[in-house]
Amino acid sequence: MTYCVGIEVDEGLVFAADTRTNAALDDVRVHRKLHVFEYPGQAAYVVMAAGNLATTQLLVSRLKRDAEERRTPNLRDMAHLFEAAAYVGSLLVDSQVQSQHTEHGHDGVNTQATLIFGGQIAGEQPGLYMVYPLGNAIAASPETPYLQIGESKYGKPILDRILTTSTRLEDAARTAIVSLDSTIRSNLSVGLPVDLALLRAGELRISQQLRLGADSPLYADIHQNWSRRLEQAVESLPRFPWEPQDR
Amino acid sequence: MTYCVGIEVDEGLVFAADTRTNAALDDVRVHRKLHVFEYPGQAAYVVMAAGNLATTQLLVSRLKRDAEERRTPNLRDMAHLFEAAAYVGSLLVDSQVQSQHTEHGHDGVNTQATLIFGGQIAGEQPGLYMVYPLGNAIAASPETPYLQIGESKYGKPILDRILTTSTRLEDAARTAIVSLDSTIRSNLSVGLPVDLALLRAGELRISQQLRLGADSPLYADIHQNWSRRLEQAVESLPRFPWEPQDR
Repeated sequence: MTYCVGIEVDEGLVFAADTRTNAALDDVRVHRKLHVFEYPGQAAYVVMAAGNLATTQLLVSRLKRDAEERRTPNLRDMAHLFEAAAYVGSLLVDSQVQSQHTEHGHDGVNTQATLIFGGQIAGEQPGLYMVYPLGNAIAASPETPYLQIGESKYGKPILDRILTTSTRLEDAARTAIVSLDSTIRSNLSVGLPVDLALLRAGELRISQQLRLGADSPLYADIHQNWSRRLEQAVESLPRFPWEPQDR
Repeated sequence: MTYCVGIEVDEGLVFAADTRTNAALDDVRVHRKLHVFEYPGQAAYVVMAAGNLATTQLLVSRLKRDAEERRTPNLRDMAHLFEAAAYVGSLLVDSQVQSQHTEHGHDGVNTQATLIFGGQIAGEQPGLYMVYPLGNAIAASPETPYLQIGESKYGKPILDRILTTSTRLEDAARTAIVSLDSTIRSNLSVGLPVDLALLRAGELRISQQLRLGADSPLYADIHQNWSRRLEQAVESLPRFPWEPQDR
């Protein structure tokens, strides 16, 4: 499994992904699921993937090749983000078929993948899409300024409670890390390290990119102190009628 | 769907359950899923159920009848809690079969149910069990002092972060309500009001029992202010290296 979350706020975009891949409980590896495509001054994108690793690695290789060879279409020369999402979707459909070299569904292997794709093209606002295995896509909205793929349930409540379009970019990133950490604690199929990328609106490049392991100060603090912060929050809730009203 | 959580701390037991039952998205009703069995001075129990409503209502009726008619066995005259759990499990298996009046699985209807069962019998410590459709049961442990049934993923992180056996009983109850509220916000199949029961160790009765609707002060406060508390907690996390270190 996998857990990735993308957030779209007024200040820009946040992308966060775990790195655990497992074929079985005893076949666990670390693979990057967050991929950066950067053409400074022109466009910058991030692709995050959940699903079949062969499919998503093939997809990423093709996206890179198309841009390097300036094929038509390619991510570097896109005019509109929704067209870029459609292009990524069509490559995804191709890669799902290509990566199996047999009839669809053969041997019970599922070659499907789902993506979060976002970025900004010069002259446009930043945007964030979820790209489905069929190749179609939906955008994040002001009412729901985030998209999740993979093991999404554990980390959803914190996003629902905190995120609005006016959340500061770095606070959105901290929220994403808490959401990831909650999922990692609760589900073995999602694991450290966490990849994080921030794309500040208008910069037309990946503003910040980092990998957080258990030893990074921010991650360690969340892991060690988040529980205490939540405990204080729970203790600050109203008393029950039968309790002393102050303690 | 359903979401119920039972918590076992040193001070006693907490039970919390939603009340939404749905056969389809357009067939939604309110039904009690938390049932109390109280024999003051002798024993007190709570049963919470997820799954087929016909099965669980039949089970509850039988548990009541057996105790009222002092049949053998019955909840009132149990000597040990693990025996009570086994008795509840065997009645559950019977009720699953009984409630369909046909061969198992007929018409694609699943008559299975899963229970959280807990309580205290005079002379014993309180205890908490999850009873599976097969009739077997597992107990909560000091390392994992809670059990969940139904739509459990959304509400799990807050339990993982906060609960230890030394958590105060009322704080455990507040944590359960936050866990329920997080689930209700994220999943349509879980809904208000919330039923809550507290069983303080040694009292051999249900110490507190209440139903929380959207208008109860505790629930309203969680709903209105929990997000702000979480926001403050997120803002208190360490800065990223590129941010000003104080704000």
